[in-house]
Amino acid sequence: MIRLHGFFRSLASYRVRAALRLKGIEFEEVEVDLLKGAQFSPEFDAVNPQHAVPVLEIDGLRLVQSLPIIEYLDERFPSPALLPGDAAGRARVRALAQIAASDVHPLIVPRVRNYLGNPLGLPEEAKQAFIQHWFSLGSAALEARLVRDPETGTFAHGDTPGIADVVLTSHVLGARVFKTDMSSAPRLSALADRCLALAAFDAGGMKQLL
Amino acid sequence: MIRLHGFFRSLASYRVRAALRLKGIEFEEVEVDLLKGAQFSPEFDAVNPQHAVPVLEIDGLRLVQSLPIIEYLDERFPSPALLPGDAAGRARVRALAQIAASDVHPLIVPRVRNYLGNPLGLPEEAKQAFIQHWFSLGSAALEARLVRDPETGTFAHGDTPGIADVVLTSHVLGARVFKTDMSSAPRLSALADRCLALAAFDAGGMKQLL
Repeated sequence: MIRLHGFFRSLASYRVRAALRLKGIEFEEVEVDLLKGAQFSPEFDAVNPQHAVPVLEIDGLRLVQSLPIIEYLDERFPSPALLPGDAAGRARVRALAQIAASDVHPLIVPRVRNYLGNPLGLPEEAKQAFIQHWFSLGSAALEARLVRDPETGTFAHGDTPGIADVVLTSHVLGARVFKTDMSSAPRLSALADRCLALAAFDAGGMKQLL
Repeated sequence: MIRLHGFFRSLASYRVRAALRLKGIEFEEVEVDLLKGAQFSPEFDAVNPQHAVPVLEIDGLRLVQSLPIIEYLDERFPSPALLPGDAAGRARVRALAQIAASDVHPLIVPRVRNYLGNPLGLPEEAKQAFIQHWFSLGSAALEARLVRDPETGTFAHGDTPGIADVVLTSHVLGARVFKTDMSSAPRLSALADRCLALAAFDAGGMKQLL
């Protein structure tokens, strides 16, 4: 059985869950409560010494990092494809995914929010402003690309959902959880709403935070 | 002509430069001085609205984000391969690359260092401690994987340098520029030194900061 170690409000876990569902792959999920520190238990240390989710157990492997996991799924279960068939298209969707997953998300994860509180001693409002700042900056970059690139269609790349949609929707969900003003990124917001209307993109427990 | 928009102390530009050199691809480089704010010029805004390097002009495209650029190069110029031939191996090296490029690097780039100074008003020592903290945490995660995984060889994955070596070496260079104590990551440090002894991995102007 394919097993996902995830957490209901982990944006990276959300991406893997959505990719599995888009491909119709059956899996079971083990909840790792990041807010309670379950990622630091000896049991989970054996699963991932980086103490992070998601981890996907599949084919006797324990895969980490959401984007490499999705690439693996796309190679192992080619249909429906989550990456375009051409190298230029793949470079584009991978870059869109990285803008959200690398330039924004690592700045707002629990370990960084904790560090802002201790040792930096930032008050709640400053932490919130920090988080919103990076979501806004990343949203502006994504919006510019979606508006400018002729490859943008109903979804981020053409008219079927793929890896960029999965990651951009996780980005918009995160921005909304942290009450970021997204009014200057209407194309990005509309894209996420179009995805969220699909069963594969269900936000699950995150909905209670929106 | 293939053109790289980069900066001598940009770790992400370093990765693309090393990948181009490993493949023996000729290119020219345009320097974008991130410390002087050249990324915000109208000329560069037209190149990349995200105001970040690297950007690779190739095949009539303007590619962004170092890892997708390297994947593109590996697809367009397959030999020597920078990714393994098997899906499990690709998932492993992509994950190693993401630990450095996503979980650490985005936290120490100029835009974040600037934000720590203004508006957060952190003193130099707190900024330095912030940077070193994330380099240490990422190094521990990388060290654990390199030591534990049987796939680790002379290089990060077997005995030829590839995408993980390029990114891990950029990580170690960054850690050294910011005077991070790397004594608890000897395997990672030795790997970077082995890479840095190769012409393709030349650190160029970064050497003056080490």
